[in-house]
Amino acid sequence: MKSDVHVFAPASVANVACGFDTLGFAILRPGDEMIVRLSKKPGLTIKKIHGDQGKLPLEPEKNTAGVAALALLEHLGFQGGIEMEIIKGIPIGSGLGSSACSAVAGAVAVNELLDRPLTKKELLPFALKGEALASGGAIHADNVGPCLLGGMVLIRSNQDMDTVKIPVPEDLYVAVVLPELEILTVDARNILRKEIPLTDAITQWGNLGGMVAGFMKSDYELIGRSFEDVIAEPYRASLIPDFYKVKTAAMEAGALGCSISGAGPAMFALCKGDEVAFKVGIAMQQAFFRAGVGSERYISTINTLGAERIR
Amino acid sequence: MKSDVHVFAPASVANVACGFDTLGFAILRPGDEMIVRLSKKPGLTIKKIHGDQGKLPLEPEKNTAGVAALALLEHLGFQGGIEMEIIKGIPIGSGLGSSACSAVAGAVAVNELLDRPLTKKELLPFALKGEALASGGAIHADNVGPCLLGGMVLIRSNQDMDTVKIPVPEDLYVAVVLPELEILTVDARNILRKEIPLTDAITQWGNLGGMVAGFMKSDYELIGRSFEDVIAEPYRASLIPDFYKVKTAAMEAGALGCSISGAGPAMFALCKGDEVAFKVGIAMQQAFFRAGVGSERYISTINTLGAERIR
Repeated sequence: MKSDVHVFAPASVANVACGFDTLGFAILRPGDEMIVRLSKKPGLTIKKIHGDQGKLPLEPEKNTAGVAALALLEHLGFQGGIEMEIIKGIPIGSGLGSSACSAVAGAVAVNELLDRPLTKKELLPFALKGEALASGGAIHADNVGPCLLGGMVLIRSNQDMDTVKIPVPEDLYVAVVLPELEILTVDARNILRKEIPLTDAITQWGNLGGMVAGFMKSDYELIGRSFEDVIAEPYRASLIPDFYKVKTAAMEAGALGCSISGAGPAMFALCKGDEVAFKVGIAMQQAFFRAGVGSERYISTINTLGAERIR
Repeated sequence: MKSDVHVFAPASVANVACGFDTLGFAILRPGDEMIVRLSKKPGLTIKKIHGDQGKLPLEPEKNTAGVAALALLEHLGFQGGIEMEIIKGIPIGSGLGSSACSAVAGAVAVNELLDRPLTKKELLPFALKGEALASGGAIHADNVGPCLLGGMVLIRSNQDMDTVKIPVPEDLYVAVVLPELEILTVDARNILRKEIPLTDAITQWGNLGGMVAGFMKSDYELIGRSFEDVIAEPYRASLIPDFYKVKTAAMEAGALGCSISGAGPAMFALCKGDEVAFKVGIAMQQAFFRAGVGSERYISTINTLGAERIR
């Protein structure tokens, strides 16, 4: 058993275009860090949270990282004391999987501290318990999956927690732009239709099949043609000022496709090559700027590592 | 220009489990044959149709093969005369893509007779015109695509006629069982919901993504886990007596999954290896027999050739 470990867990993009609730990928940064150490005080203590502007609770039972860690500690029958320090690198409510990231970091950090009794994939249900706290009980693994496992991850079934790694071409880059806007996940959920026309559903799953095949064949044109969301984007676009101008700017700068990351307000664009991704990211920021909205930009490959111990 | 050609076009399985309207594959047999030859009589003449019990019209404008051939001849600006003979090998209304097959055979035969002015993929819109006649104007390429091109074909978009070949594992076999029942395609369509819950749609596209990934990774377990249809099968099952007994028989005999082929009444089961496929096919026939229904059985690999000239 180690005396302390330091873990990094990456941000992730979920709802990848046609992959609503089913397709997500991890990026290189931003991400959350977590330090856990053995403590003489029994049970789990969250000692400090940095970078959350005081928004997150210190009580482990109310904190996504705490819930994930507690579930794992209980499963492992650990009787000692653990102290946790959280460094939030992902803004809360950004659409970049902030709560999933904390939950993953909590589970991974405890697992590393206890000398890896479980594999990464076995940690999934514990991290999902943490994430469920943030999403009101619903289980969606499209942020937790990629954040934990890395890479492009298809959630074949949220009920079965069945995750499938989808190989992607090496030269696939993403430009993520996070505008200074706030969208509540509950609003982003409520704006969606509960019933959809069968024809829309067929369009969506045809595209998802095309997207998966495009990734696995390294067929950038197919990825681009499949990059269409008729379920969430047409509704959630209204929550982001000048969404279509930002999207058009990305496409004109050479993106394969551009859509909303998770529940937003972050937007992402997949690109062939880093140079295109840089150009696309800047074009998206400029479009937001013209709408009077400041933003952060992250350029990244698909992060194939996922959460990992860094010290 | 040849004086005559003889073409074979294979039956196909559409609506592959979770791939409603988007995923289909060709099988080795049954299939339609078509003989076309130059004729002194101008225009297109359908001289004879064998094996249709007099059900299909001889007027080219009312015949799927005729419509496909006419559309192609017009596109090519052909002024001469052509005579067509059709040998129906696929029972009409079987769920094995009978009309699509005739349409494909018509387009391919004319193209071969005129020394292949178009590639196979370029023939797709002409074959679809023929198929549209049979389906009341709606365009669904999930039979025409695989029948023409061979293999497992994803129709990314029926509107864009965008077809994607999905590689499948070499040892993938199919057992197709065609019961002596009649289902009208229009009834099979009308029994479906026009609006579906978003949650059902997510289940379906998660499975479709898993199915495509399973084929491309040669991951039989993933293919099996993804083999679930929550859109068509639960409704269309009622049109086939003892559907669930037949399905259970297939699964108990070792199938990866079993569902309805196209609009039915044919049923199909994907299997790993030919021995399993033979056992599964017999088990399905026995289950139909116990329900008092006779059937035909076809065991096949995925037919990667599609329609081809045989003489």
